Amino acid sequence: MTYTSPWMTPELDGFRDAVRRFVATEIAPHQDTWRKQQHVDRALWRRAGELGILLADIPDAYGGSGGSFAHQSVVFEELAYAGDTAFGIHVHAIVAHYLLNQGTEEQKQTYLPKLASGEMVAAIAMSEPGAGSDLKGIRTTALREGDSYVLNGSKIFISNGYLADLILMVAKTEPQAGAKGVSLLLLETRDCAGFKVGRILDKLGQKGQDTCELFFDNVRVPLQNVLGGVEGRGFAQLMNELPYERTILGVSGVASIERALQLTVEHARERRAFGQALLDMQNTRFVLAEIKTEATVARTFIDRCIVDMVEGRMDTVLASMAKYWISDLQCTVVDRCLQLFGGYGYMLEYPIAQMYADARVQRIYGGANEIMKEIIARSL
Amino acid sequence: MTYTSPWMTPELDGFRDAVRRFVATEIAPHQDTWRKQQHVDRALWRRAGELGILLADIPDAYGGSGGSFAHQSVVFEELAYAGDTAFGIHVHAIVAHYLLNQGTEEQKQTYLPKLASGEMVAAIAMSEPGAGSDLKGIRTTALREGDSYVLNGSKIFISNGYLADLILMVAKTEPQAGAKGVSLLLLETRDCAGFKVGRILDKLGQKGQDTCELFFDNVRVPLQNVLGGVEGRGFAQLMNELPYERTILGVSGVASIERALQLTVEHARERRAFGQALLDMQNTRFVLAEIKTEATVARTFIDRCIVDMVEGRMDTVLASMAKYWISDLQCTVVDRCLQLFGGYGYMLEYPIAQMYADARVQRIYGGANEIMKEIIARSL
Amino acid sequence: MTYTSPWMTPELDGFRDAVRRFVATEIAPHQDTWRKQQHVDRALWRRAGELGILLADIPDAYGGSGGSFAHQSVVFEELAYAGDTAFGIHVHAIVAHYLLNQGTEEQKQTYLPKLASGEMVAAIAMSEPGAGSDLKGIRTTALREGDSYVLNGSKIFISNGYLADLILMVAKTEPQAGAKGVSLLLLETRDCAGFKVGRILDKLGQKGQDTCELFFDNVRVPLQNVLGGVEGRGFAQLMNELPYERTILGVSGVASIERALQLTVEHARERRAFGQALLDMQNTRFVLAEIKTEATVARTFIDRCIVDMVEGRMDTVLASMAKYWISDLQCTVVDRCLQLFGGYGYMLEYPIAQMYADARVQRIYGGANEIMKEIIARSL
Amino acid sequence: MTYTSPWMTPELDGFRDAVRRFVATEIAPHQDTWRKQQHVDRALWRRAGELGILLADIPDAYGGSGGSFAHQSVVFEELAYAGDTAFGIHVHAIVAHYLLNQGTEEQKQTYLPKLASGEMVAAIAMSEPGAGSDLKGIRTTALREGDSYVLNGSKIFISNGYLADLILMVAKTEPQAGAKGVSLLLLETRDCAGFKVGRILDKLGQKGQDTCELFFDNVRVPLQNVLGGVEGRGFAQLMNELPYERTILGVSGVASIERALQLTVEHARERRAFGQALLDMQNTRFVLAEIKTEATVARTFIDRCIVDMVEGRMDTVLASMAKYWISDLQCTVVDRCLQLFGGYGYMLEYPIAQMYADARVQRIYGGANEIMKEIIARSL
Repeated sequence: MTYTSPWMTPELDGFRDAVRRFVATEIAPHQDTWRKQQHVDRALWRRAGELGILLADIPDAYGGSGGSFAHQSVVFEELAYAGDTAFGIHVHAIVAHYLLNQGTEEQKQTYLPKLASGEMVAAIAMSEPGAGSDLKGIRTTALREGDSYVLNGSKIFISNGYLADLILMVAKTEPQAGAKGVSLLLLETRDCAGFKVGRILDKLGQKGQDTCELFFDNVRVPLQNVLGGVEGRGFAQLMNELPYERTILGVSGVASIERALQLTVEHARERRAFGQALLDMQNTRFVLAEIKTEATVARTFIDRCIVDMVEGRMDTVLASMAKYWISDLQCTVVDRCLQLFGGYGYMLEYPIAQMYADARVQRIYGGANEIMKEIIARSL
Repeated sequence: MTYTSPWMTPELDGFRDAVRRFVATEIAPHQDTWRKQQHVDRALWRRAGELGILLADIPDAYGGSGGSFAHQSVVFEELAYAGDTAFGIHVHAIVAHYLLNQGTEEQKQTYLPKLASGEMVAAIAMSEPGAGSDLKGIRTTALREGDSYVLNGSKIFISNGYLADLILMVAKTEPQAGAKGVSLLLLETRDCAGFKVGRILDKLGQKGQDTCELFFDNVRVPLQNVLGGVEGRGFAQLMNELPYERTILGVSGVASIERALQLTVEHARERRAFGQALLDMQNTRFVLAEIKTEATVARTFIDRCIVDMVEGRMDTVLASMAKYWISDLQCTVVDRCLQLFGGYGYMLEYPIAQMYADARVQRIYGGANEIMKEIIARSL
Repeated sequence: MTYTSPWMTPELDGFRDAVRRFVATEIAPHQDTWRKQQHVDRALWRRAGELGILLADIPDAYGGSGGSFAHQSVVFEELAYAGDTAFGIHVHAIVAHYLLNQGTEEQKQTYLPKLASGEMVAAIAMSEPGAGSDLKGIRTTALREGDSYVLNGSKIFISNGYLADLILMVAKTEPQAGAKGVSLLLLETRDCAGFKVGRILDKLGQKGQDTCELFFDNVRVPLQNVLGGVEGRGFAQLMNELPYERTILGVSGVASIERALQLTVEHARERRAFGQALLDMQNTRFVLAEIKTEATVARTFIDRCIVDMVEGRMDTVLASMAKYWISDLQCTVVDRCLQLFGGYGYMLEYPIAQMYADARVQRIYGGANEIMKEIIARSL
Repeated sequence: MTYTSPWMTPELDGFRDAVRRFVATEIAPHQDTWRKQQHVDRALWRRAGELGILLADIPDAYGGSGGSFAHQSVVFEELAYAGDTAFGIHVHAIVAHYLLNQGTEEQKQTYLPKLASGEMVAAIAMSEPGAGSDLKGIRTTALREGDSYVLNGSKIFISNGYLADLILMVAKTEPQAGAKGVSLLLLETRDCAGFKVGRILDKLGQKGQDTCELFFDNVRVPLQNVLGGVEGRGFAQLMNELPYERTILGVSGVASIERALQLTVEHARERRAFGQALLDMQNTRFVLAEIKTEATVARTFIDRCIVDMVEGRMDTVLASMAKYWISDLQCTVVDRCLQLFGGYGYMLEYPIAQMYADARVQRIYGGANEIMKEIIARSL
């Protein structure tokens, strides 16, 4: 049962090797430090930019590496295979795609090269204390005043919030207009009056990732920084780009499942109890046979999704399925694997324990799985 | 989210239309009759043979239709979409593949054309009262005596048992030799002294399918009727052919899942309760969104398996995964769908009730799912 | 781990023995016949009446046996332990309790003795083709005309529908008044003009139970036959009595779970595969250990419910929990047990196969489990 | 649906109030500190001793509070209701029961008063790096040498390991004798040559609890410190006392389930999304109705177990059921509750996130749930 993903190519094999080396030398050794300080080092972004990893699937013309979603997938897979959840490259890539697909030519020229090089770190600010996945309920306003929008409000659970130089803000430019009053704004955070980053939030897992609360008190954003140059398109822009984010979560999720299986098979082969290897017990064999099956099914499914992304036919419903079904599976797989480690499974020095804490948010962020089901249900 | 299976072609579209018409006219209308008499009519086999449906993926040279596994899949899908479980074409095709891949040239010439035309109906006899999926535990013996084997023993749960003209027998030609003493024999049942068909078993579902107990009391089979012409290869032959059977069960299973979903969405759209359509209730939406997701994942997975079969790279482990994972899913899908029908779901005139009874055996026959897990575990 | 239900007494032990003998001689041997004719024999009702089983917990003054809910539970348990689902004594007892708790003194005097003796068989008619568990949506009307109500409409899924002499009708006496327009009427079916029993429905299981569609075409019911003597109280009366019905379903469910476990442990102890008893395999041991645990938890829970009923403090929420949680458990227990029987589990001559078909409706009738959750949720 | 546990009394109500106040003032405010330092303060033990909480169900004659298992249950429940997992009173009480039931009169006189007052903190050392729940596989030896046993080996996952003054050691006094060579020894750690506490382990949750690795290098224990005064009884002593530990885990587990439900209902009532309270959405209602049902069933079950403990008839099988079934349920309940908190559920400042991390080990320690199933299976 050797299997190669249909989207892999010899060129991608080489790219994967390069990414794997980068992850092994620049990311894996720093996990403890990053967890303690609650964010990665800024230097990492620069180095990743030099290697062409940051915007792997953005055209050369904008400083990207000119690859496809397959390249991006290789990056996300390798990070997941190494157990990293600190490096907020996912959100960074997402913002780049908003720019690429929804931005004006000038916006692309201005920001994409800086995101590609790591000069700027990007974040996207959707959730608010009073509104999670409910975009219509957001209260942050961006009201015109002269040649600026004036932002007021707060955002919560913002990945890359501490390091971000560029924040794609979801705000209401016309508070009474419902979905049509929502716009996306490009906010540069350096020397930005009225902008404040709250403390880095203490999370159950993914502790190396700087997730923050953000505060906006009469923050000024130039009018031309509205994404795409036209107000009121925020909701449509979000609808267009959310599939990218959700597919990414599926790609990472499958790689995590594969990693959990591999770690657990190794452990079960070596660990002995009651006079035999753990792997020789029927319960262990059945649990791992089930997980191997689920991993195989999930891999087949995400490979279809990756191909659909590469070929430009991914849609909202399929991406929502990938996000919800894979994240649910990831949690039950990691849970059953952890159990097979016994007491060791509860010790953070064992990667499976870390994976358990890290995995849980996959069912929540990127649109809670309940929201995914609502989206899928609309297609019935 | 329109999706076409990657293995479908315009030619297969045409074939599917033909099969669908055949099913609609020759199979669907007779379900009640067949359930009552516990078997299909012999005439059905002839008509299916005329249409070239019986051995869709056997070469023309042997009377088959010269198609690929994709053609066979179309047949199994269309039967499942129509809710038929009476027509034992699955077992028939399986025996044909034993002949094609493991038989001598003479055996192929003798039997395949008759199986293709429906002149002969085939069955395979593995399970015994004292041994289910445990092939090493079989007790039926086939001992050499002059130019014949003499068969003694009994078999149970034999699909097509009542109508079968040709039975592929699993028997021990060397009872002391373990796996190496197992051989497959081709037994013609017409005018066969010592052979007796027990009563047709009364099953939970699949009531139109003649599942029987068979008895062998000094039944003579010519020596040349050992499959492949050489004794003692039965176990290896079974190992080679079981993936075909298991993949087929996956193909039917996914089609049943798709049918259950479609029937239930229609019902939920029409049915009203508490002043709204059932489909407008959040619980209904969530349940159906989950099932639609699972159906999509399962479809993606079985399509990979079908392509692997067509391209000749299916293996034991992947086929075991398809068999176990899809049959488990089929049962939980049908169960949840039935629940959404309320009281109607328990009435046999509603197809979902029939599907519930029919589905349950999918986790048992073709190798119980526990056996599948043992096989998969060996690959860990 | 010997355990005796806290509500059992020496007197109840004796009663249980008597019921068990009755079931063994008068009920168990007729199952096949009853399944074929789709209803029990009327003679059974008389005999059960003679033994004092029919209204075990109705006061002597009304012809009952003067026992408590513990007595009734013994009856339901013994029927379940014997695998009977044909004898519609549950519905009969439910109607008796409507009479006892909600009826006028005259109604009690008139009907309870006849129900106790088996002279009359009772049914309750709630569900309609267009309204399942949604009582407010019923369309059957009972409009005053002179000294009668005139009934028009139809009912569906009525247990005891074929044999019933007395039907407790749910109908709208004031169609525009919503819940306040619902009344319960006592309809005698003998020589009843305009009343028609449709064919006995063909169900997935419980085939010996006569479940019917009923039709009412200008059927006249005397005004004094409104339950309790006052119109418009139907909804409140239903709310008061439904806990009795739901607790009963829990009582039967736990007994079925215990029976499934016992049958399966016996089978797993005797059945051999791969050179060992099925019970010696770790997967079998784990599955049965889980089921034994669930059976123990469920027994503890239903014993609390029975005590609460006996002591008069059962409420709607707890009864809804018992109905939903136990019926869900019953289905998964029977499903896992069936799997351990392998191919035999799919043969109706094995009780586990019958139990699988019989169990499925427990999650639907008596208020679908979704309705139970709505009721429980109201208490949050 | 007001319900009072059948074992509660007015006296226990008073005791519960006192414990609750103690927990609120002495335990709840220090959680963060204890998590950071990875252990509670020694002063806590003294204060708990003064209040009579430490050995609530040990006779006065030995310094205990003379209560029953009901008193102990109140303590464990109140700690769980407050979300504490730092205070290792569970293990402390367990060791006290080994002394009470298995110790010599002198051992009881010597140690129980000190455990009651908090002068000494107790731990029990079973697990080893090479043997988790497999007691027969332990390698730590305690070989006679003059008037001492000489201990060599190491132990892992020892709760209270950092603070413990008295460790109940499981060691092999006769390494070749299998189960009969196992003894329990009472080791005083102060000024104990050759004894070393490894670093406090970094766990997924329960971070305020000092779980350690322990090392023994020719550590001397007086011969009279073998529990019960006779060598070789360790295995039998463990078998006798393990039900106490396992029931305790069930008691804490049910209280945690009840807390999770309460916190989540409150959150769902207050939190609004899509224009309505979260609690008004059908999915939320169904999830919480399911959890409320499970909490009610679990409460009924553990109350039976508590009564069985109080009345001295708890056995190994029932205790194993309580341990496994409740810990499994606890994890799925907390998981579903967390999901309803959305992003907040992943933030450690929300108690549900902490509960998620804390709960996971319940399925592992005290005998992994797989071991529980083996024990239960033996009773089939």
